[in-house]
Amino acid sequence: MELESREAEPGTVRPGGRTARVRAAVLQAAGDVLAERGFAHLDLADVARRAGVGKTTVYRRWGTVTALVADLLVDMAEQSLPRSRTGSLIGDLKANARLVQRTLTDPRQGPLFKAVIAAATCDPRTAEALRRFYDTRISEWAPCVQEAVERGELPEGTDPREVIRAVSAPLYYRLLASGDPLDEAAADRAAEAAAAAAHAGVYAR
Amino acid sequence: MELESREAEPGTVRPGGRTARVRAAVLQAAGDVLAERGFAHLDLADVARRAGVGKTTVYRRWGTVTALVADLLVDMAEQSLPRSRTGSLIGDLKANARLVQRTLTDPRQGPLFKAVIAAATCDPRTAEALRRFYDTRISEWAPCVQEAVERGELPEGTDPREVIRAVSAPLYYRLLASGDPLDEAAADRAAEAAAAAAHAGVYAR
Repeated sequence: MELESREAEPGTVRPGGRTARVRAAVLQAAGDVLAERGFAHLDLADVARRAGVGKTTVYRRWGTVTALVADLLVDMAEQSLPRSRTGSLIGDLKANARLVQRTLTDPRQGPLFKAVIAAATCDPRTAEALRRFYDTRISEWAPCVQEAVERGELPEGTDPREVIRAVSAPLYYRLLASGDPLDEAAADRAAEAAAAAAHAGVYAR
Repeated sequence: MELESREAEPGTVRPGGRTARVRAAVLQAAGDVLAERGFAHLDLADVARRAGVGKTTVYRRWGTVTALVADLLVDMAEQSLPRSRTGSLIGDLKANARLVQRTLTDPRQGPLFKAVIAAATCDPRTAEALRRFYDTRISEWAPCVQEAVERGELPEGTDPREVIRAVSAPLYYRLLASGDPLDEAAADRAAEAAAAAAHAGVYAR
């Protein structure tokens, strides 16, 4: 049954509920295609069919593949887990590193990120959407660094966003470039390296 | 004039010289297409035409686009600059970081790397060729870390390859994911962070 057709059952759907369900179904289908087949195979009509949503709804709401991927990234940022609060900088950074590591090695999320990053290399609007995704995630985790500065664990003036970026960087480098194993040991080492550099004042302005 | 036709002038070309020139012309053309248009537009017949080389030569020698890109990466590794020797770990790591930063922001090399990395996300043979490229580059620079261990600048057991990877990682993360500026300050900070983490023993086995 197409979600579209549920509109014919008044009273069974809360106002706004259908719109949210359509979006969820379409973004799920778009993510599936990206993870399974890559950006080059993403097609609005195919996504509509997989999502069980009318083609015209998808064209009217998203219009282009690029806009659909941008909306998927907004949703991924919204759905992402809130930061952990372990009480220590190294604990927080390891929790962040493990979360990134689990995401990038997840059978669905890993290929999905690869596909979006590949698309971003040749599409400026996808690159901008990806940049906003990381911006949101970095904003979520940056306070753990600021708290460490306030506790006196790190030098005054440490740039919290640079520290969070430093945790992710070695994990993405493994995923995209060197192909080295992306295991928990790599995640812990990424966190320890970022903490050591922060302690040494490398990220202080 | 097609390079192919030069075969008709015996004595003017040293044995092996023509083969090397054909390879250089074809790899140059392949790199141009990758940098200008991306992996999806790479086509052996088009590369042959741009290189001024017979199509059958290109098909016989490389066979597939994937094999051509793999050979381009072998050539890029061979053509890459040898490591600098500044006498100090931080000097050597900064030289490495600046070289990576200049390469990734070069108007031709930057898009070329992006295109190859994008291709590697969905093509295992290209991913393997890319892995070998980084392996070669890391082997070139790893001795500067080993020398720092021998000078007593770094803890015994420091993994030289991990330190060199740590220098590159933040620069690739900026290029491919976060979109943050890829400037000399970022390069220097990448080197300083890797050195600080290495000093703290993060990369000691």
